[in-house]
Amino acid sequence: LRLERGKAEQIVEALNADLASTYVLYHQLKKHHWNVEGAEFRDLHVFLGEAADHAEEAADELAERLQALGGTPVSNPVNIAETAPVEFEGDDVYDVRTSLEHDLAIFGDNIESLREHVELAADLGDHATAEILREVLVQVEEDAHHVEHYLEDDTLVTPEAAEK
Amino acid sequence: LRLERGKAEQIVEALNADLASTYVLYHQLKKHHWNVEGAEFRDLHVFLGEAADHAEEAADELAERLQALGGTPVSNPVNIAETAPVEFEGDDVYDVRTSLEHDLAIFGDNIESLREHVELAADLGDHATAEILREVLVQVEEDAHHVEHYLEDDTLVTPEAAEK
Amino acid sequence: LRLERGKAEQIVEALNADLASTYVLYHQLKKHHWNVEGAEFRDLHVFLGEAADHAEEAADELAERLQALGGTPVSNPVNIAETAPVEFEGDDVYDVRTSLEHDLAIFGDNIESLREHVELAADLGDHATAEILREVLVQVEEDAHHVEHYLEDDTLVTPEAAEK
Amino acid sequence: LRLERGKAEQIVEALNADLASTYVLYHQLKKHHWNVEGAEFRDLHVFLGEAADHAEEAADELAERLQALGGTPVSNPVNIAETAPVEFEGDDVYDVRTSLEHDLAIFGDNIESLREHVELAADLGDHATAEILREVLVQVEEDAHHVEHYLEDDTLVTPEAAEK
Amino acid sequence: LRLERGKAEQIVEALNADLASTYVLYHQLKKHHWNVEGAEFRDLHVFLGEAADHAEEAADELAERLQALGGTPVSNPVNIAETAPVEFEGDDVYDVRTSLEHDLAIFGDNIESLREHVELAADLGDHATAEILREVLVQVEEDAHHVEHYLEDDTLVTPEAAEK
Amino acid sequence: LRLERGKAEQIVEALNADLASTYVLYHQLKKHHWNVEGAEFRDLHVFLGEAADHAEEAADELAERLQALGGTPVSNPVNIAETAPVEFEGDDVYDVRTSLEHDLAIFGDNIESLREHVELAADLGDHATAEILREVLVQVEEDAHHVEHYLEDDTLVTPEAAEK
Amino acid sequence: LRLERGKAEQIVEALNADLASTYVLYHQLKKHHWNVEGAEFRDLHVFLGEAADHAEEAADELAERLQALGGTPVSNPVNIAETAPVEFEGDDVYDVRTSLEHDLAIFGDNIESLREHVELAADLGDHATAEILREVLVQVEEDAHHVEHYLEDDTLVTPEAAEK
Amino acid sequence: LRLERGKAEQIVEALNADLASTYVLYHQLKKHHWNVEGAEFRDLHVFLGEAADHAEEAADELAERLQALGGTPVSNPVNIAETAPVEFEGDDVYDVRTSLEHDLAIFGDNIESLREHVELAADLGDHATAEILREVLVQVEEDAHHVEHYLEDDTLVTPEAAEK
Amino acid sequence: LRLERGKAEQIVEALNADLASTYVLYHQLKKHHWNVEGAEFRDLHVFLGEAADHAEEAADELAERLQALGGTPVSNPVNIAETAPVEFEGDDVYDVRTSLEHDLAIFGDNIESLREHVELAADLGDHATAEILREVLVQVEEDAHHVEHYLEDDTLVTPEAAEK
Amino acid sequence: LRLERGKAEQIVEALNADLASTYVLYHQLKKHHWNVEGAEFRDLHVFLGEAADHAEEAADELAERLQALGGTPVSNPVNIAETAPVEFEGDDVYDVRTSLEHDLAIFGDNIESLREHVELAADLGDHATAEILREVLVQVEEDAHHVEHYLEDDTLVTPEAAEK
Amino acid sequence: LRLERGKAEQIVEALNADLASTYVLYHQLKKHHWNVEGAEFRDLHVFLGEAADHAEEAADELAERLQALGGTPVSNPVNIAETAPVEFEGDDVYDVRTSLEHDLAIFGDNIESLREHVELAADLGDHATAEILREVLVQVEEDAHHVEHYLEDDTLVTPEAAEK
Amino acid sequence: LRLERGKAEQIVEALNADLASTYVLYHQLKKHHWNVEGAEFRDLHVFLGEAADHAEEAADELAERLQALGGTPVSNPVNIAETAPVEFEGDDVYDVRTSLEHDLAIFGDNIESLREHVELAADLGDHATAEILREVLVQVEEDAHHVEHYLEDDTLVTPEAAEK
Repeated sequence: LRLERGKAEQIVEALNADLASTYVLYHQLKKHHWNVEGAEFRDLHVFLGEAADHAEEAADELAERLQALGGTPVSNPVNIAETAPVEFEGDDVYDVRTSLEHDLAIFGDNIESLREHVELAADLGDHATAEILREVLVQVEEDAHHVEHYLEDDTLVTPEAAEK
Repeated sequence: LRLERGKAEQIVEALNADLASTYVLYHQLKKHHWNVEGAEFRDLHVFLGEAADHAEEAADELAERLQALGGTPVSNPVNIAETAPVEFEGDDVYDVRTSLEHDLAIFGDNIESLREHVELAADLGDHATAEILREVLVQVEEDAHHVEHYLEDDTLVTPEAAEK
Repeated sequence: LRLERGKAEQIVEALNADLASTYVLYHQLKKHHWNVEGAEFRDLHVFLGEAADHAEEAADELAERLQALGGTPVSNPVNIAETAPVEFEGDDVYDVRTSLEHDLAIFGDNIESLREHVELAADLGDHATAEILREVLVQVEEDAHHVEHYLEDDTLVTPEAAEK
Repeated sequence: LRLERGKAEQIVEALNADLASTYVLYHQLKKHHWNVEGAEFRDLHVFLGEAADHAEEAADELAERLQALGGTPVSNPVNIAETAPVEFEGDDVYDVRTSLEHDLAIFGDNIESLREHVELAADLGDHATAEILREVLVQVEEDAHHVEHYLEDDTLVTPEAAEK
Repeated sequence: LRLERGKAEQIVEALNADLASTYVLYHQLKKHHWNVEGAEFRDLHVFLGEAADHAEEAADELAERLQALGGTPVSNPVNIAETAPVEFEGDDVYDVRTSLEHDLAIFGDNIESLREHVELAADLGDHATAEILREVLVQVEEDAHHVEHYLEDDTLVTPEAAEK
Repeated sequence: LRLERGKAEQIVEALNADLASTYVLYHQLKKHHWNVEGAEFRDLHVFLGEAADHAEEAADELAERLQALGGTPVSNPVNIAETAPVEFEGDDVYDVRTSLEHDLAIFGDNIESLREHVELAADLGDHATAEILREVLVQVEEDAHHVEHYLEDDTLVTPEAAEK
Repeated sequence: LRLERGKAEQIVEALNADLASTYVLYHQLKKHHWNVEGAEFRDLHVFLGEAADHAEEAADELAERLQALGGTPVSNPVNIAETAPVEFEGDDVYDVRTSLEHDLAIFGDNIESLREHVELAADLGDHATAEILREVLVQVEEDAHHVEHYLEDDTLVTPEAAEK
Repeated sequence: LRLERGKAEQIVEALNADLASTYVLYHQLKKHHWNVEGAEFRDLHVFLGEAADHAEEAADELAERLQALGGTPVSNPVNIAETAPVEFEGDDVYDVRTSLEHDLAIFGDNIESLREHVELAADLGDHATAEILREVLVQVEEDAHHVEHYLEDDTLVTPEAAEK
Repeated sequence: LRLERGKAEQIVEALNADLASTYVLYHQLKKHHWNVEGAEFRDLHVFLGEAADHAEEAADELAERLQALGGTPVSNPVNIAETAPVEFEGDDVYDVRTSLEHDLAIFGDNIESLREHVELAADLGDHATAEILREVLVQVEEDAHHVEHYLEDDTLVTPEAAEK
Repeated sequence: LRLERGKAEQIVEALNADLASTYVLYHQLKKHHWNVEGAEFRDLHVFLGEAADHAEEAADELAERLQALGGTPVSNPVNIAETAPVEFEGDDVYDVRTSLEHDLAIFGDNIESLREHVELAADLGDHATAEILREVLVQVEEDAHHVEHYLEDDTLVTPEAAEK
Repeated sequence: LRLERGKAEQIVEALNADLASTYVLYHQLKKHHWNVEGAEFRDLHVFLGEAADHAEEAADELAERLQALGGTPVSNPVNIAETAPVEFEGDDVYDVRTSLEHDLAIFGDNIESLREHVELAADLGDHATAEILREVLVQVEEDAHHVEHYLEDDTLVTPEAAEK
Repeated sequence: LRLERGKAEQIVEALNADLASTYVLYHQLKKHHWNVEGAEFRDLHVFLGEAADHAEEAADELAERLQALGGTPVSNPVNIAETAPVEFEGDDVYDVRTSLEHDLAIFGDNIESLREHVELAADLGDHATAEILREVLVQVEEDAHHVEHYLEDDTLVTPEAAEK
């Protein structure tokens, strides 16, 4: 694709890190999608399922782009865990609030990494990669912001109703 | 449909019981679909509406199958109430949690009955009825499991938020 | 449209008041659509977005009808605020429950005004306007009723779960 | 919904009667939907299924409206039978013509009741209820008229063809 | 449909007049749909086609309703011309402006007649007919209003552009 | 459209006759669509409605084509009746079988006329008109054949069933 | 597909017999789809067309499954006739009732054979084949039951209407 | 359909030959659809499935047309084989190239026959049949041309890649 | 495709000329689609875009057909310009009326050529090509006729409005 | 969202100005959507309606983004008017040309502001905001360009036609 | 869900193994989806993408079912690799044929495991799980069979074409 | 559009070069879409058709954007050939591999040019043009990468299969 080998390799490395992080996020969102329960479970179950779908689609786009630049996308689950700059939460099942906080931490790290790589690609003149990353970024920030909103301290529930 | 009369009659009786129970469940889910209120009302209103639709569709399938086997589906509301092995909850309007617990009880009885009738039909060689019942069963267990999930003890609501 | 000038002018004036109130409601619903947060945020965010869409569509229908009757629909935001019999809530960001209570107050005033204007139009023999207003009214009452339901005192949340 | 309690109660009572009658009609149409047979069975099976769907949807709309007015919709099958001004046909399976005549009788009673309640709601200034009832009425009269048409004395069948 | 013969006959007569007028309008709109030409032809061709479709659909609804009330819809083209209170324009091909003015005249007469018949049906307690006529009326007034708008004196065309 | 005036005029005349006949057929099919009743009414009601739609669409295509050739399509209902080589049945309401026989007679005449005009257009080198007429012809023959099939002497009805 | 050769061959043979029978049924249903005529022709024409489509789709599924098990699906029309345990009706055109009775006979034989092969496949541990056959069986029994219903002795036609 | 008996019979005979050939082609394409394997199997599997669908649809159109002309479509599989001017390939499973060559041979014969029958129908003045055959012909030639293209000697495969 | 080489070559040559002309028309319509401005610009912009799409689709069909007959479609833009019997307008940007007149001239030449080639193909017994050309011709004449209509001398604009 | 508070506040302020301007544009486009009349009214009515929809959607996106960055979107109509750098046109109803010129002035100011804010967000490293603004900008420039095109001096209308 | 704890635990364990294997298969299919290249790459790219989607959907169904039975689905990528009875291929990029052979090996192991678990669930009376597993099995065997077909030794490529 | 004339002219020139190159690519892709043949023909035929569609859509977007900036898009085929920095391949028909290599060369040149123009537009502050070019670039690079993949040296074909 008419891009110097050295530049392409820098971008491939960056994309492989994002790909691995995105899959770690995907598997953690799926975990919460399956285990969430309680009063708000169905709304959260749907939201987490959609966010996981977004992650899976983003992973595919990142992998196809880095393949097009001559790289080899990380794919073995064990390699994914090793390559990713982020880490899967512990093996326990956590309550809903804790689960979302864990997701938010990974979302935040991924956002910072994607922003850096937008600039890396643009600086190297690879505008197609930069554009693809920007579109991924917009979706990721929207999902992250929804998690933030869930965690805020406001509700329609009153103590009286809860105690009935 | 090339099935011995005696066998067909056993299956017809089994299906008529399931049909009646399914309609009792339908009317009870509709009751809760209409009366549910409070912080989670819209999500529950939608869920209960869909679960009632599933019950109505299942009732139609059960009735058409038993008609095909030479039986007469129970239809008069009074007969439905009498034929059904399960019972409609009392006439009061209950709070959300109690309503869902009542629904879960009927769901559970229906699951046990459907499982037995899957085996009855398969044992009598009526594989089409068995298949239809299995498909009904998969949907019923999924809806029942959603009710279980709603009733679990986890939430994003904090006492501080509730007291604001 | 074969309607006496005097009658048309009465209806135009009535419709312009409803148009202005509907836009005030639209802007207030949008405010809450954007600012809502906490455990139920996504469900409320979606609901408020849909209710705002209904208001925007109703405003368009009211404006087109009064234009057809020879009137000029109010459109400048400042004029909207002045013409409307209802008032936008204060500039602060309120908690969810208070926000919905403010919306319910405007919904209530609009319902009363629309009911009066249905009768005005029918009495003046303008059956098309009356029909349009009735269809708007049905949607407005449904959305208002949903707000009422959200504010009722029932929930699946238990104090134990909230305190976890 | 800004309606005086006394007026609302009158309308709730009227709607609960219509709701119960509509469910009796629904169950009777379903009975005929399942049991119809002979030369015209498939066309009638489809028609009766659609008419039953219309009844089920109308019941839901009536129940949601009366709930919005502060009432409690009748839901227990036994109560439905008791509350309804109309009666389910006997327990036998009747031939097609007789079945449709029984349906037509209930349709007719429901039409008269709905017309009265349109006027009741309009007189009390509850224009949204009146509009909802009018839309239900249009569909009910169309389905009833189709039943009338089926029962008329004309056919393409000739005695020669029938005797072949 | 549980309506006194005498009342039904009054409504049938009213509907047959509207049916005939609607078909005269349909055929005249089709004439203009085919013959329109010049700078705005395609936009007017599409508009007139849609307005003719509305007329054809309205005619069908009017005919089915009056049939349901025991009447016989006028159908022979010669009878349509005789029954209709409105008259088809002369046989010439007129320019665009004149054609639309002729259509507007028929639209106006039909609007007045429909308004009267809404009141007739409502007064006789036939609320389904009144509702159907109201819905027809809303569409007819919207199409008529569009014709009015086309005939107003405003344009983006400048004398300089026209003379180029 | 690069066609000699003399040739174009021959084709215009032929198309105007077909247009008028198609509209007479349309109005007669609508009459039967509205009046049909008895055991097979709904199936025939739907069939006649679709056949009338086909006629209306064919009329529009014929009119647009003859307009493109420089002609003026007949449009006034009275002129339609006069121009058409076929005649509307009498004013009475006939039984189903007689109604369909009347329709079949017009269908037959129209088929013969369309076949001649396919050849006329092709001989004059107007291949677009010929193609349009062929496509109209295929649909017309299919609808006519369906009418023939309805009138054949076979049925599932037995004398025993009819006498029950 | 990890199935012992001997088991696979037993299933292949069973599926080839069902495939052949299904194609014989397909061709016979098509025959009746084309030749049916009289008062109920259009409804039966549509039903028989849909039933033939179901047969064609079932044949494709059976053939693809047996190919996956290493077999060769029967395909030559002459071989189809020879392989099938059922027989095509005689070459004459029969009346509607007789035609449907012939179809019902083949439907019945196919149902018995499919039931046996469900058990054969399940006993040999080939659960995918068993599941595919069960789904085919459900559709086949539904179509067969519709044929039974057409042949029952009930009708809306009265001797008076038939003799008019 | 207003066509002389003698002419109609000639066309019926021609259409029955095309119908039989089309079904032989259908069964042979299905055979290859099921048995194709190797590097290009999925693309060919899909193509052959679509071509078989086209053949099945064409057969239905031919049969319905000849039925409309008073003929009886061939339907028994054995009769199809006897009536068809083309022959099914031998019972073996051939490799992909040989299979497509066999299909191409039948396609070619069918194209020649259809061309002749287009002319026969047009000469006899049966323009609807001619039009139907032309539309069938366009699809048949397109599918045949695709087979030709598959058999041409060009590829992206290199000997080096194949030997890896 | 079983067509004599000599005949096929005549048709290929004819189709290549039509293909080239169609692409010249396509590029000219696109030019006007982009450059049109003034009071009617959006309506004309849409119309010219659709007409260009029709041309592009027709070009593809012509090219695929001539390829199927063993020819090589012209494709290099320079060759297109040389092969086409019609000529692209000058390089200037013309006003709307002049632009449409230029398009109409090419449309007219293409219509004459297509008519001749319909006859050529039919005379050589290539009925599939003739049918494809007829369908192209119908669309081309419809678009050409729309251009004619735009250029006619009628408008809703009045001198008074234009001078405001 | 991992953005420094100071940077986020700069962007929030910029977005709030764009949000307010976009709503002023929305209300002004709606005014013209309702009041436009004359020869081109329907085309302009549709265009202005779509442009207003684009503005309403853009406002929602801007508000949600600034909310995600921790800001509070302006929502009260009076505040919108005060915050916006652009001004609503006077209260009169202007002719079409003047109205569009007023819209173009606001479009132009908004384009300049959006371009600046694209650069602001990119410079601060907030690539998601920059991307969202770019997508808004593309749509805004397209709508603005359409307005420019409407105002150009070209037309199909001739002085002769206008004076007829 | 009314299933004994001991039985449920057996099924949960079985489902967790299948879930892990399905995710290993998913990641390996994705690897090949991204890396496949050469003459057949696009067809294989699409096929492998669809097969990976099927695996991802199956994993979700298995996880939701085992959650409903009270279990905790494996989700951490490292745990997936450890729990799965199958193993991811080595880290190299293999040629197409080798890649598909590796996939086929995992498909085969999964098929055997799923068959066993169908029987386990059925024997324990958990008919819903058994039905879900059967539906998964049908899809898995179809995809596996497609891989087998790709690997067979047949092709349209000739040595002459490859060497050109 | 509020852009300095000098800047706009630079961008217009750049866009006209891209527009011309894109049309050269379009015509060359169409050539290969029509002429491709052999074992992989259908898959390549579809791919090349889609790639040509992408080029045609991109050309339209580029032309509309440069028109909006005050430029005149190149349109005459001869001018396209002259303006484009890339050249159409020779007039021969090449084999598949060579054809794709020719396409890849043009794709590569276009990618380099588009990247430069993204930077040119962004540097001049024309962010809408830059965004449009980025979106075009993403699609162009994806199609180019697919061509690269087709040309790689891997295949499922074995020498043994090819020689059969």
